[in-house]
Amino acid sequence: MERRILTVPIHRFEHDRLDAAQDLVAAEDPLQISVNGNNLAITMRTPGHDRELAAGFLFTEGIVHQPAEIQSIETDGKGRVDVTLSAGTEIDTDRFARNFYLTSSCGVCGKASIEALRSIGCAALDRERPTISPALISALPDKLHATQKIFQQTGGLHGCALFSASSGASLLVREDVGRHNAVDKLIGAAFLEGKTPLADCILLLSGRISFELVQKALMGGVAVVAAVGAPSSLAIETARRFGMTLIGFVRDRRFNVYSGEWRLLMGDDSENR
Amino acid sequence: MERRILTVPIHRFEHDRLDAAQDLVAAEDPLQISVNGNNLAITMRTPGHDRELAAGFLFTEGIVHQPAEIQSIETDGKGRVDVTLSAGTEIDTDRFARNFYLTSSCGVCGKASIEALRSIGCAALDRERPTISPALISALPDKLHATQKIFQQTGGLHGCALFSASSGASLLVREDVGRHNAVDKLIGAAFLEGKTPLADCILLLSGRISFELVQKALMGGVAVVAAVGAPSSLAIETARRFGMTLIGFVRDRRFNVYSGEWRLLMGDDSENR
Repeated sequence: MERRILTVPIHRFEHDRLDAAQDLVAAEDPLQISVNGNNLAITMRTPGHDRELAAGFLFTEGIVHQPAEIQSIETDGKGRVDVTLSAGTEIDTDRFARNFYLTSSCGVCGKASIEALRSIGCAALDRERPTISPALISALPDKLHATQKIFQQTGGLHGCALFSASSGASLLVREDVGRHNAVDKLIGAAFLEGKTPLADCILLLSGRISFELVQKALMGGVAVVAAVGAPSSLAIETARRFGMTLIGFVRDRRFNVYSGEWRLLMGDDSENR
Repeated sequence: MERRILTVPIHRFEHDRLDAAQDLVAAEDPLQISVNGNNLAITMRTPGHDRELAAGFLFTEGIVHQPAEIQSIETDGKGRVDVTLSAGTEIDTDRFARNFYLTSSCGVCGKASIEALRSIGCAALDRERPTISPALISALPDKLHATQKIFQQTGGLHGCALFSASSGASLLVREDVGRHNAVDKLIGAAFLEGKTPLADCILLLSGRISFELVQKALMGGVAVVAAVGAPSSLAIETARRFGMTLIGFVRDRRFNVYSGEWRLLMGDDSENR
């Protein structure tokens, strides 16, 4: 059950054609870490080495300091790991400030995480809107790079940008050491200006595409998300569920379409699709 | 006060020499987001656009759905942003599961975050141990790449590896869609086997170096952290405070040393240091 690589059907755009293909993607699924029966954290992780992940989390966050403080670590193979501390070992829950993560309330499997998005306001996207040109998609990374000022100087930031799906014009760019923060800044700016849902925009990400980034795009009403990097399995599954066009590995006039390929305008090649 | 790029003194290893230089790094600092006076989240972010970050976080996590639900967003310029909701707008705190993040309890400035590490068990590292050879550092990325199996197939994972500082032998490799998870799996495995502190190991990261990754390495007793990518400002500051050797941009027989350059054995070139 704990597969770390999944094979998914995709469409590959290459040599001005869009062809069905297969791709390997990294698995992403929630893991709930409990200590003595109390939920402590949920993290979106790649399945495997879950006992070590729980132990490492507790140790590197200062909850436990010696292996002897852990009596047992049990995994149920379904995204739950429960740590039982040795008798006499107590953890200082006062030190754990309340931190908010949507995934915390999503249950402990990818399917539950996706379904939980409906409860916070994610809805199916309009499949007819927008249409997008492959040439426009291919041109986006250079446009982001041209405006991503801090990255060019430090190499240390994630960038994201909103583009018009019709003209390809750059509408807004944000950068941050955290990729979730970069997207929050971008969509937050549009939200405060009353511009959401961003139904006719393309969101470009400088890195990889996680479940949480797809969630944020969905909440912003963005129907097309493209990235220079790879999407996770759960990002793809979520995009498919809500009718989002999800594009990865946008490089050198090539890209992979993981979901929503129907939005691509193939022009004279459309009969080849 | 809200500088997004900082200039830091470093040592650059190039052409078999280690020379003093200057480098530009991306700023990383905590931001505390409060709603109606209650702390909701702390995120490690690059300063700037904090109002948009708070609004985007609340919107994309499903807390607010319309701009009119927000009455005001105030920032104090010191890492706090407080959102006041409009009269009649309520948020469903039951939906916010408790999630654990160390940074939540660290206060709201980088200095407080660093000082808080002492309270969870981080201590100054032994400055005399280990010594490291530049050639050994330069060889690490290829060794990680050779063993990082899933990344080569999917391009979707962060990798990290432990190496012997004396022989350069690869001791353990872990991969995950989340870079914190990859390090937790690695250090967790060593912890469960009673091998921490990892005083004579080098931790190599496939990506960038954040404050939280330096924290996890410190808890594991790792004195040398090297990465293919760039460190953040707070990662550097933390490494310096605890005497960690922090190395970034390890590529093509070159790298930058942001902290702890004294551990590098320069051999015949030592008088050039």
